[in-house]
Amino acid sequence: MKKEINLSGGIDLDAVVETSGKRIDGRAADELRSVKFTKDYITSAKGSVLIEMGNTRVICTASVDENVPGWMRYQKVPGGWVTAEYSMLPGATQDRTQREATKGKIGGRTMEIQRLIGRSLRAVVNLKKLGRRQIYLDCDVIQADGGTRTASITGAYVALKLAIQRLMKDGLLKEDPVSEGLAAISCGIHKEQPILDLCYLEDSAAEVDANFVMTESGKIIEIQGTAEEAPFSKDELLQMMTLAEKGIAELTALQKEVLN
Amino acid sequence: MKKEINLSGGIDLDAVVETSGKRIDGRAADELRSVKFTKDYITSAKGSVLIEMGNTRVICTASVDENVPGWMRYQKVPGGWVTAEYSMLPGATQDRTQREATKGKIGGRTMEIQRLIGRSLRAVVNLKKLGRRQIYLDCDVIQADGGTRTASITGAYVALKLAIQRLMKDGLLKEDPVSEGLAAISCGIHKEQPILDLCYLEDSAAEVDANFVMTESGKIIEIQGTAEEAPFSKDELLQMMTLAEKGIAELTALQKEVLN
Amino acid sequence: MKKEINLSGGIDLDAVVETSGKRIDGRAADELRSVKFTKDYITSAKGSVLIEMGNTRVICTASVDENVPGWMRYQKVPGGWVTAEYSMLPGATQDRTQREATKGKIGGRTMEIQRLIGRSLRAVVNLKKLGRRQIYLDCDVIQADGGTRTASITGAYVALKLAIQRLMKDGLLKEDPVSEGLAAISCGIHKEQPILDLCYLEDSAAEVDANFVMTESGKIIEIQGTAEEAPFSKDELLQMMTLAEKGIAELTALQKEVLN
Amino acid sequence: MKKEINLSGGIDLDAVVETSGKRIDGRAADELRSVKFTKDYITSAKGSVLIEMGNTRVICTASVDENVPGWMRYQKVPGGWVTAEYSMLPGATQDRTQREATKGKIGGRTMEIQRLIGRSLRAVVNLKKLGRRQIYLDCDVIQADGGTRTASITGAYVALKLAIQRLMKDGLLKEDPVSEGLAAISCGIHKEQPILDLCYLEDSAAEVDANFVMTESGKIIEIQGTAEEAPFSKDELLQMMTLAEKGIAELTALQKEVLN
Amino acid sequence: MKKEINLSGGIDLDAVVETSGKRIDGRAADELRSVKFTKDYITSAKGSVLIEMGNTRVICTASVDENVPGWMRYQKVPGGWVTAEYSMLPGATQDRTQREATKGKIGGRTMEIQRLIGRSLRAVVNLKKLGRRQIYLDCDVIQADGGTRTASITGAYVALKLAIQRLMKDGLLKEDPVSEGLAAISCGIHKEQPILDLCYLEDSAAEVDANFVMTESGKIIEIQGTAEEAPFSKDELLQMMTLAEKGIAELTALQKEVLN
Amino acid sequence: MKKEINLSGGIDLDAVVETSGKRIDGRAADELRSVKFTKDYITSAKGSVLIEMGNTRVICTASVDENVPGWMRYQKVPGGWVTAEYSMLPGATQDRTQREATKGKIGGRTMEIQRLIGRSLRAVVNLKKLGRRQIYLDCDVIQADGGTRTASITGAYVALKLAIQRLMKDGLLKEDPVSEGLAAISCGIHKEQPILDLCYLEDSAAEVDANFVMTESGKIIEIQGTAEEAPFSKDELLQMMTLAEKGIAELTALQKEVLN
Repeated sequence: MKKEINLSGGIDLDAVVETSGKRIDGRAADELRSVKFTKDYITSAKGSVLIEMGNTRVICTASVDENVPGWMRYQKVPGGWVTAEYSMLPGATQDRTQREATKGKIGGRTMEIQRLIGRSLRAVVNLKKLGRRQIYLDCDVIQADGGTRTASITGAYVALKLAIQRLMKDGLLKEDPVSEGLAAISCGIHKEQPILDLCYLEDSAAEVDANFVMTESGKIIEIQGTAEEAPFSKDELLQMMTLAEKGIAELTALQKEVLN
Repeated sequence: MKKEINLSGGIDLDAVVETSGKRIDGRAADELRSVKFTKDYITSAKGSVLIEMGNTRVICTASVDENVPGWMRYQKVPGGWVTAEYSMLPGATQDRTQREATKGKIGGRTMEIQRLIGRSLRAVVNLKKLGRRQIYLDCDVIQADGGTRTASITGAYVALKLAIQRLMKDGLLKEDPVSEGLAAISCGIHKEQPILDLCYLEDSAAEVDANFVMTESGKIIEIQGTAEEAPFSKDELLQMMTLAEKGIAELTALQKEVLN
Repeated sequence: MKKEINLSGGIDLDAVVETSGKRIDGRAADELRSVKFTKDYITSAKGSVLIEMGNTRVICTASVDENVPGWMRYQKVPGGWVTAEYSMLPGATQDRTQREATKGKIGGRTMEIQRLIGRSLRAVVNLKKLGRRQIYLDCDVIQADGGTRTASITGAYVALKLAIQRLMKDGLLKEDPVSEGLAAISCGIHKEQPILDLCYLEDSAAEVDANFVMTESGKIIEIQGTAEEAPFSKDELLQMMTLAEKGIAELTALQKEVLN
Repeated sequence: MKKEINLSGGIDLDAVVETSGKRIDGRAADELRSVKFTKDYITSAKGSVLIEMGNTRVICTASVDENVPGWMRYQKVPGGWVTAEYSMLPGATQDRTQREATKGKIGGRTMEIQRLIGRSLRAVVNLKKLGRRQIYLDCDVIQADGGTRTASITGAYVALKLAIQRLMKDGLLKEDPVSEGLAAISCGIHKEQPILDLCYLEDSAAEVDANFVMTESGKIIEIQGTAEEAPFSKDELLQMMTLAEKGIAELTALQKEVLN
Repeated sequence: MKKEINLSGGIDLDAVVETSGKRIDGRAADELRSVKFTKDYITSAKGSVLIEMGNTRVICTASVDENVPGWMRYQKVPGGWVTAEYSMLPGATQDRTQREATKGKIGGRTMEIQRLIGRSLRAVVNLKKLGRRQIYLDCDVIQADGGTRTASITGAYVALKLAIQRLMKDGLLKEDPVSEGLAAISCGIHKEQPILDLCYLEDSAAEVDANFVMTESGKIIEIQGTAEEAPFSKDELLQMMTLAEKGIAELTALQKEVLN
Repeated sequence: MKKEINLSGGIDLDAVVETSGKRIDGRAADELRSVKFTKDYITSAKGSVLIEMGNTRVICTASVDENVPGWMRYQKVPGGWVTAEYSMLPGATQDRTQREATKGKIGGRTMEIQRLIGRSLRAVVNLKKLGRRQIYLDCDVIQADGGTRTASITGAYVALKLAIQRLMKDGLLKEDPVSEGLAAISCGIHKEQPILDLCYLEDSAAEVDANFVMTESGKIIEIQGTAEEAPFSKDELLQMMTLAEKGIAELTALQKEVLN
């Protein structure tokens, strides 16, 4: 049972998702939703992209602050920093989501996601080469249909690279501090079938839910697997990982196209 | 001097804005920026529009809650309610704006704007006819180049109407509770010249700044005029109002097209 | 309908206000309530006054801080600053108003008002001549009967001038940085009749509500007009402005007497 | 050393207070400052008084809420409740005190004081006889010169009694739930001399500081004694108590006069 | 009636406490509960102790920060500082106590207690001799059965001394800045009988409740007496003080043993 | 680099951890630290345990609330609920950790951990069988030396079972709602060597960090793996999982002993 966000508007999930053993939108088990990147979507930001994965749409921007955060100065940590913030527009879900600014505090789910995004991106950035500056990656979900955190990571990577291209073009950075490509995808197990890139209805019905952040070269940056209904086996984990490897290879290839 | 938000990134405003006595983007004094409405931009919301006025872009959504707010139940106020929330994405400005959710509180400027949006829209809605429900109008600025509050009002009206059309189509509402069309526009006085629909650089350089919310039939819903540099005369106020009347007539005509 | 603060304690407004077409307290349409200034009411503050307009009573104090705010130092803005805070004692209204310190946050109405007071006063102060210091204007409403924001502005001007007289007497300031006198007043339209200086019951019943901040010389610093019940015309706005001009001329004359 | 609030504006306390072994304002060791009660000072409140003890001035209001607090309903506690809130206007001290609403939280000193006021007043009220209602006692210090918490208690008692007289007159209460009179006073030891009713400069210089809340009949409701500089003896405590008994007898006599 | 914390889980206090005129746990009126100090309980802290008084158990740690707080630097106060924080584990009471971190603010009771602990300990520390550092005393109640604030003070003294011994041993401090021993105890009056060291059930049933902080040499640092049910006389205060003197002499003797 | 909590007090981690290729405390790569459970450590709670894993010590309590949370009632979710809260005493780390109650908000790391604990425990509880009640699991770290989140889960399981035994003994619960045993452990990769149950210094130096929550029967409930220094391979993940399986088998065996 998912208590935090109910996006389904009262639909009977099982009836919808499970008809005839096929995926709800006719995809194959190992098939991504249609992916689209709109580069430079927000012209005020140094780097930006609108990423769309099926009906999930996220605006990712990269802003450059030519100061490092206070704790780095205070603890005398050298180099720069990359951090992320994540938010969902109230109208992004069928039942309106209350604005966290209005509540006056950021919820646990948001914190978890923005920490994950920042940590993942930092894993492919050489912070010393970045120089004495901070890059903010803002991921704002304008429409939510499952997989918003993985779409945010995949999009944030593109926004980050665009900002770095701009810094290099402006002569503010000599060398690209990004070591290699990175993307993220969700997998799940539904009715004992491992599936890739879950939409919201699939996510709600799945017994197991896992998110993978991996590099272009197929190494793991972060793996999070959670039993929603019942504990799962090592085998099931490996099946999901195989799907993830395929999905991430496709996503990093698409990112490359967009960036060139 | 504007202390709250500096979007100009260190440009010398006077040099940029004031060359040769013409407007910075070549417009006539009484000319709107190019206006574009993208209807149903967010499919998860009941009503939505992306409004673009020059480089200012705002996502407006209308969400329907089939409950009225607590204070209405408590004070036994009959009918429904319309409320608004306003926010700016961090990357919407050249110098990144800190997220209010992160600060843990909503600033005075945001409060003022969202109160204005809600109050303006309620002025054309018969709350008793709306029935026992609340409509949230969320205005999220994804790119800011001046006039975000007036664009929000103009866009929120479209989102509201689309949501009401949907409620009527679904048989949840018999009669349209909206009495007439409504839009908003900014005016200013720069170098003694009244101008319509200020972009950010013009707004920063203007001596006087005024926002007008008016109906399709040319009546006033809200007027707010502020001396930024020096007090202004009644004559100057009237000159700005004449510009506003022209701009609002154009905007309400465009809204009508979009809504049919 | 006014949702935010209900001071009327359940009285039937229409019955009270509208009997016989006359104003509830017998005043003429263009007549101010009785105005009283008690100078140096709080001896701990640099400048202070108790302003009474009918049953509305506000303590205004001016405190001088020989430092400028952090953002001025950070943004290297020259000169000084004038800021304002507004609050209402819980017992100032018939139904006790909850203390904002207890709620842990300042509401939208308070924010709007204190921003208005600060902006208005800054419009007549040459901040460079003020020198490297900040003046806080605190307006604490001890009894509320309508027009608390305009009374606060009118009183804050007196407190500010008294503090500046003190600074000049103490040799801390050579030249008076205040360019000219300033006061504020509310107007409204009730039963199609424009009226000046509304008390609480009139304010609750009025169709249109406007606040004017103007200088001694009759120029406009701020104008805010709001349709409470129905949109209003340009003519109605001008009628209210004529009343405001008369009221403000009377108030600035009274301020002069008090200050000499 | 007093860290929390420095009201002295940099004066050398010892020089001022200790000249010639006499009290700074010429009073005898067991002499109260001049005391003044202005009844019904705030007409919007059910009961109110402006209490002045020397230069310390506090507005005390009593507001009646015909509901009991949530925790009483929840825990099924019978009868009514009396609670208190305390605040200081920013301009009440020579160095402006920051507003707690602006800070977004109530400080420890304020909490301690308002808990003390509420607890003290409840000790003389039969909460069952009060009926199913809550009385708020708001104590707002408009000018602070020492002893603000004790002046608040002494004034709150008068405001409470006035509100109860009003409730009885209106037939809402049959019987007076207040068992007997109550007042509070501070004592201290300075240069080994016990003194009554300390002004701010004396309070800052005293080695020992104690507050007494006592009834008309001389019984103790609350005693709080604190060593500011050095531990004190039981004898010194008893000397202070003797002074307090005298001061409280005088105050309760004055309260009686005001209330009749 | 105690509204703030109900630890009794619905037991009928009077029935339990008052049977046969004896104390509930068989103690004599002037008898402490069994006291136990476990030194160096937390090895990560500079000084620490687990203090147990009957079923009340508190972990006290002393942490040393080689910086003084900001306000000391800002106000140029010489020497060091000692401060305290107090908290209760949620499971420390029979009815779980909500965590203050979860509520997002520290309640009045906690503030009052931690201010008392800090003030008491500072009374026996020569802050100039302490040097330019701050000592935090953290008192975390892991099990609560009455007298948690006095146990915290008694334990905090031990933790402070252990930390200072460590600083002296490490050569960071030449001279012991602590002037003499200090402990705290509660007393009460129940059925007209003064009793020492109240457990929770006794505390809930007592008419009068007082806390004493005294030095090894029998001088008073802080005294707080509160009428819970009815005002009390000077005689009753003195009887409680006599009990407190006995209890504190026993506690300071035990502290000495632990520290040697 | 770990920015959030620095417990090492400035020690050179690499020098300490890496001497001679052996583990810092002489353990084998697949060896747990010494584990100790002290049952019923807090007598006020329904279930409690002090778990010690090396120098990491956590008090876990289970409190039973005979009401379900508001969102369950509101959303009409049947059954009961299990939730967790996690906190660290300020003195638990060598450099004192600031109290979250004092900061006024719960940090992202704490949120993440307490969500993980709750989610993990719910995976082995049949919430419908639990009945219409909520169990709070409070995990308070009194001493921190790495692995506090996994020790919290392992301890919380014991506290939960003890509370359930008590509910069953009291006849409030007929059937045990817990399906099987559960424990958690951390693994890491340091100098290409997979190691089990990292202490703080090892955790700080490790390139990869993973936490495993598994059942008695060896199934996965949650897996979280994070690249701290460099991405890791699927092989490395599997090696860590093998260590985790061994560790968790040992822990669940120890839990059984304690519970019988």
